[in-house]
Amino acid sequence: MLTPTPQDKFSFGLWTVGWSARDQFGKASRPDLDPFDSIRKLSELGAWGFTFHDNDVIPFDATEQEREQLIGKLESTISDTGMTCEMVTTDTFAEPIFKDGAFTSNDRSVRRYGLRKVLRNVDLAGRLGASTFVMWGGREGSEYDSSKDLFASFERYAEGIDTVAAYIKSQGYDMRIGLEPKPNEPRGNIFLPTVGHALAFIEKLEHGDIVGVNPETGHEQMATLNYTHGLAQALWADKLFHIDLNGQHGPMYDQDLVFGHGDLISAFFTVDLLENGFPSRPGAYVGARHFDYKPSRTEHLQGVWDSAAANMSTYLLLKQRALAFRADPEVQAALEEAGVNSMAEPTLAQGESAADLLADDSVSGLDVEAVGERNYGFVRLHQLAVEHLMGARS
Amino acid sequence: MLTPTPQDKFSFGLWTVGWSARDQFGKASRPDLDPFDSIRKLSELGAWGFTFHDNDVIPFDATEQEREQLIGKLESTISDTGMTCEMVTTDTFAEPIFKDGAFTSNDRSVRRYGLRKVLRNVDLAGRLGASTFVMWGGREGSEYDSSKDLFASFERYAEGIDTVAAYIKSQGYDMRIGLEPKPNEPRGNIFLPTVGHALAFIEKLEHGDIVGVNPETGHEQMATLNYTHGLAQALWADKLFHIDLNGQHGPMYDQDLVFGHGDLISAFFTVDLLENGFPSRPGAYVGARHFDYKPSRTEHLQGVWDSAAANMSTYLLLKQRALAFRADPEVQAALEEAGVNSMAEPTLAQGESAADLLADDSVSGLDVEAVGERNYGFVRLHQLAVEHLMGARS
Amino acid sequence: MLTPTPQDKFSFGLWTVGWSARDQFGKASRPDLDPFDSIRKLSELGAWGFTFHDNDVIPFDATEQEREQLIGKLESTISDTGMTCEMVTTDTFAEPIFKDGAFTSNDRSVRRYGLRKVLRNVDLAGRLGASTFVMWGGREGSEYDSSKDLFASFERYAEGIDTVAAYIKSQGYDMRIGLEPKPNEPRGNIFLPTVGHALAFIEKLEHGDIVGVNPETGHEQMATLNYTHGLAQALWADKLFHIDLNGQHGPMYDQDLVFGHGDLISAFFTVDLLENGFPSRPGAYVGARHFDYKPSRTEHLQGVWDSAAANMSTYLLLKQRALAFRADPEVQAALEEAGVNSMAEPTLAQGESAADLLADDSVSGLDVEAVGERNYGFVRLHQLAVEHLMGARS
Amino acid sequence: MLTPTPQDKFSFGLWTVGWSARDQFGKASRPDLDPFDSIRKLSELGAWGFTFHDNDVIPFDATEQEREQLIGKLESTISDTGMTCEMVTTDTFAEPIFKDGAFTSNDRSVRRYGLRKVLRNVDLAGRLGASTFVMWGGREGSEYDSSKDLFASFERYAEGIDTVAAYIKSQGYDMRIGLEPKPNEPRGNIFLPTVGHALAFIEKLEHGDIVGVNPETGHEQMATLNYTHGLAQALWADKLFHIDLNGQHGPMYDQDLVFGHGDLISAFFTVDLLENGFPSRPGAYVGARHFDYKPSRTEHLQGVWDSAAANMSTYLLLKQRALAFRADPEVQAALEEAGVNSMAEPTLAQGESAADLLADDSVSGLDVEAVGERNYGFVRLHQLAVEHLMGARS
Repeated sequence: MLTPTPQDKFSFGLWTVGWSARDQFGKASRPDLDPFDSIRKLSELGAWGFTFHDNDVIPFDATEQEREQLIGKLESTISDTGMTCEMVTTDTFAEPIFKDGAFTSNDRSVRRYGLRKVLRNVDLAGRLGASTFVMWGGREGSEYDSSKDLFASFERYAEGIDTVAAYIKSQGYDMRIGLEPKPNEPRGNIFLPTVGHALAFIEKLEHGDIVGVNPETGHEQMATLNYTHGLAQALWADKLFHIDLNGQHGPMYDQDLVFGHGDLISAFFTVDLLENGFPSRPGAYVGARHFDYKPSRTEHLQGVWDSAAANMSTYLLLKQRALAFRADPEVQAALEEAGVNSMAEPTLAQGESAADLLADDSVSGLDVEAVGERNYGFVRLHQLAVEHLMGARS
Repeated sequence: MLTPTPQDKFSFGLWTVGWSARDQFGKASRPDLDPFDSIRKLSELGAWGFTFHDNDVIPFDATEQEREQLIGKLESTISDTGMTCEMVTTDTFAEPIFKDGAFTSNDRSVRRYGLRKVLRNVDLAGRLGASTFVMWGGREGSEYDSSKDLFASFERYAEGIDTVAAYIKSQGYDMRIGLEPKPNEPRGNIFLPTVGHALAFIEKLEHGDIVGVNPETGHEQMATLNYTHGLAQALWADKLFHIDLNGQHGPMYDQDLVFGHGDLISAFFTVDLLENGFPSRPGAYVGARHFDYKPSRTEHLQGVWDSAAANMSTYLLLKQRALAFRADPEVQAALEEAGVNSMAEPTLAQGESAADLLADDSVSGLDVEAVGERNYGFVRLHQLAVEHLMGARS
Repeated sequence: MLTPTPQDKFSFGLWTVGWSARDQFGKASRPDLDPFDSIRKLSELGAWGFTFHDNDVIPFDATEQEREQLIGKLESTISDTGMTCEMVTTDTFAEPIFKDGAFTSNDRSVRRYGLRKVLRNVDLAGRLGASTFVMWGGREGSEYDSSKDLFASFERYAEGIDTVAAYIKSQGYDMRIGLEPKPNEPRGNIFLPTVGHALAFIEKLEHGDIVGVNPETGHEQMATLNYTHGLAQALWADKLFHIDLNGQHGPMYDQDLVFGHGDLISAFFTVDLLENGFPSRPGAYVGARHFDYKPSRTEHLQGVWDSAAANMSTYLLLKQRALAFRADPEVQAALEEAGVNSMAEPTLAQGESAADLLADDSVSGLDVEAVGERNYGFVRLHQLAVEHLMGARS
Repeated sequence: MLTPTPQDKFSFGLWTVGWSARDQFGKASRPDLDPFDSIRKLSELGAWGFTFHDNDVIPFDATEQEREQLIGKLESTISDTGMTCEMVTTDTFAEPIFKDGAFTSNDRSVRRYGLRKVLRNVDLAGRLGASTFVMWGGREGSEYDSSKDLFASFERYAEGIDTVAAYIKSQGYDMRIGLEPKPNEPRGNIFLPTVGHALAFIEKLEHGDIVGVNPETGHEQMATLNYTHGLAQALWADKLFHIDLNGQHGPMYDQDLVFGHGDLISAFFTVDLLENGFPSRPGAYVGARHFDYKPSRTEHLQGVWDSAAANMSTYLLLKQRALAFRADPEVQAALEEAGVNSMAEPTLAQGESAADLLADDSVSGLDVEAVGERNYGFVRLHQLAVEHLMGARS
């Protein structure tokens, strides 16, 4: 097992290890963890940072005094451990008041209450020096299409996010918002169901410059989508502000498995992208490698920490293999043969117009049949990837 | 059965009725139809318009002379029938040369060839007065993640669409582009897999002002997504330039059933949106009601036309029911009780700032428990919708 | 709205209306209901029967005395209301002890404990006169393939069911077991994931004669399967002992919507099968019409009872439409044209052998092309069904 | 790359490498292969056997003379290469005549024609010494529920299979039938959609003793099911007569990727089961390791053979890792801790009755809380599997 160090920038939500394993069909199978102990334990395992929902640390009904006390304890734990509080997020889904959403609830008093809860949490995030503020609108959505004015819902959602973004700016926090898409669960259809929908939504915001996405592996896979492709489009749009890594087996309930314990090949290519970048745009993603998983309900405390460690060691193993994959001359040759590197060349030549292209005899006269017979060698290239992933070529 | 008229603006792709029922596992079960006959027949059935891929009318290997002759025949058929050629699209997927895509093929000569094919088809669309130019990049994508430079792929895809959009402008055509998303099939992962991804992509284009989306019912449903929600986000972004209506049973192969023959309740809400608009933004979608379906392979010629007619009569029936639903006072009361109409009211009051909200005692002092007990009545509202759909309340 | 009567044989699980709306991501939004009140209320709404898990009425940690007292109260409620306790089932999933299953837990002490819990509940079911004993093994399964000896798991599962079945016989109860399949949730993969797997499993039992299936609409649809086809195979095998009706939107978390609020056309054909039977084997299914749904979390108490009523009125509406569909002469003609009625005729003639068939010139000399051009008219037939469903042909 | 030998018992369908890459949306991108060349080429690559549909070798419209000539050529190719023709199957899906099925077509003349085609092919299989006769009823099913008399469909399906099985017996062939389940595509819903449904169906047959299943990796995964669990239930029922290995990415169109190129962890556990058997029932599956995949359409001839080789080398690599996994003492300890080995012990003691169990104080008095806190260690066990799969522990 590879051992993580803070340089790997691994972080965990306190709700991950802290999940007491209450699920839709069963009671808690583990005790509530003390969040401050969790931070210490994660630090010992090699994590660099942690993240949390307000209510992971501060009970929903805490008094102002209790709140201050807990924040103080959090600050001293951070100070003691050297752990980075890299992201903060708000629970706008657990309480009954949010049962129809927070920013898009059909009840305006709920919208106002939800917005206040988020704004207060921005201040907390700012105080703790978090660089990312994630917003997962898990209850923003519907089960029944006529139960929402969909146009007005997007208006309200945008109003809410813009208000938060403007507030961040007004307070001078060095912080960016990461919207987290999810297709369904707990709502039948959640607004901003995929990375694409969230990216499109952001473009319509007034303060969208500090708003990006926080894509979660399993959430995209629940919609049958390719997670790595989603990350790529977010990177292309310069909007990959944060990531949530975990595992999932396609469209079913949200499994939140350990990273790599779902679709392993996909995890390999995710790490390859995060560590190596694109062929035409090399360079690692520089943000936190954040895990948003759940220790299976069959595990007790030992399993909680074993599973936390498994996320990191699997990531490091995949990184090792991804570096070897890209360094292998046979892989380089296969990429060349597959034409992967040629994609960087524009389709039109410098200064060439559509009219020029239409007049180019080499295009109209292309030997269509011969070009159609090209052997791209994609399967062989993929087999090389699988063999590297399996450690069979080193 | 309700009888369609040209005022209903129904249109069909010539490839729909013209599908000879060759599928992944079987040979053609129907003869090729003469596309000109199809236009006449669709007109007789009450359709207002038609659409086509270049190669639905002009064989891929036609000479320039044959091409001209066929276009002439098309123009006279249009003139004879009064049918509107409302949309044209390009086949960049059937020929082997496009097996790795057209605008994002790893082979630059293919990209150039594909771009030329599309540009020439723009001219044809312009000549026929089509107002929409649909682009479905069915082969733009991959089965294996390392077979693409994903960043460069988005660059090339954007270059291609921008070149086409710029060309449309340069030629003065009164035409807009509609990108058609699809998650998979025939590629393992298609780029721009959902309405959201396409909308986000468009925002990054130089000439995105004339580029919107053409969402297809089944394509969104293949990704477990709510089609009507997708249309709503596109409308909110002012980008719903065209639609493809059909039927599907969730994530499996692309079924292209008759509209309404898949998820009927969803079809009801789609028609409700297209005909009634949003509560806060009433008004019908004004574009073509375009069907992109396939007559089942078990049907011969009679079934082709029966199924074409079924699309239109089902739409009209759903429209009748959707109008009655919105007009029903009991529904209006249920919408009010559910708070649907309150969504139009901004969360913040006129001129209210985040700081004001934070200082508002009515927010901090909200009776959270009482508000959490609100009975939204969404299930009863949905039951009213189902009963209207079933004609049980008229 | 059509009004149900006891003759309709509608029944509800006490856990359905009694669900306090605690879900994977949120706290309870409704108070716990008194189960005895629920029975009374369901009776008032027109239901004929009710069903329950042991722990819906008797807390897991109840003393023997408390248990007896509660059972007494249940008996008097039954007596007061005239409601039928038609089915009883056991909660072997909520408590932490069952986190790895009951009959297939890797811990033998759990298997023994689970078996005891079920056997005791059989006695209770017998005492209350229930005719069906449902077993949903929601925790029987795994997330990780090596965590189970799969062969031994099937052995243990069969041992458990056979022990229960033998016990039922030994005690002389007039009761049959209904196994309830589900593909996943709360386990990553549940054993006996579909109706097919359960039917196959039953055939290997020693006491399988009193074991059948209890298929749930949404459970089959979570696996992309056709619920009505599943019911049909169970009926063909003479094993449809009970049903769980509800609504679902394909592969995602278990939604438990009101019956008809998911895939309405599928619900129509389910009711058609239950009420009309097969063309070649007419006759209604005679068991309970049992609803296993959840009132949405957005609803408070009013919504609980509105949604309960919605299940019944939608069923009755679908029944009305299904009867009209089968009675319509145009439908009868379309069925005939589609060859539906010819399916009842054996492929081989009376006494005909394979050798006879091989020697039959009318087979070898069949005009394959002509037969291949048959227009089955399935789409038109389906359109007739949709129009009947929509009340557009009465 | 590991090199296969005939002892590995790898076999390929001639339609796999022979697929000319015509798909639902595109023309053939490769030439038709000569099937006899394919056999030779597969032999050179290390395969032990091959399989085929009648029409892979003998055109549908071949005369008797042509048929004999081709069979002769096949026999001499077998003789020349030493390749085993281990399985034969019948194309009852490609021709228009079978558009509504063969054994369950609504047209009795089609049912008779289809049955004849299959029976003749049984004779060919017998002549070639094939031990397995696979039947994939790809067109047996429907898109619309009322288009079938479902009861009669099962009757006809059973009649057809029983007739074929009886014929095999009557002719004295040493051959067993393998039914191949698939949930959908090319029909909207295929009868016998999963391994479970097929196993249940077989139990109702008169000659079911020589009928088992031929599960295909991707087919089960298209229905969100766990392939290895399906194999296990088939093995438990002693009905795993053949396998079709390939790769798939969950519910979407049938991808037929190279084995291991879809869900790699699942492929690892499949090979583990095939090679190691169950902990309580060790021993390898002894049948052919048969690949039913398609070389991607982007590949030309080189890619065809590269991909064929990739199936075998991936299997061998997975086998190597699965053997090491089971041999690792740390894994053995983790399995023990997880209780995997305890599953083999019956829940009841020898001679213990239900009454005995109910009277056992150690059961009623079990420390439920303590047992509920057991740490099964499933996640750590899975992590060990992933590390073995990745070659990180050798």
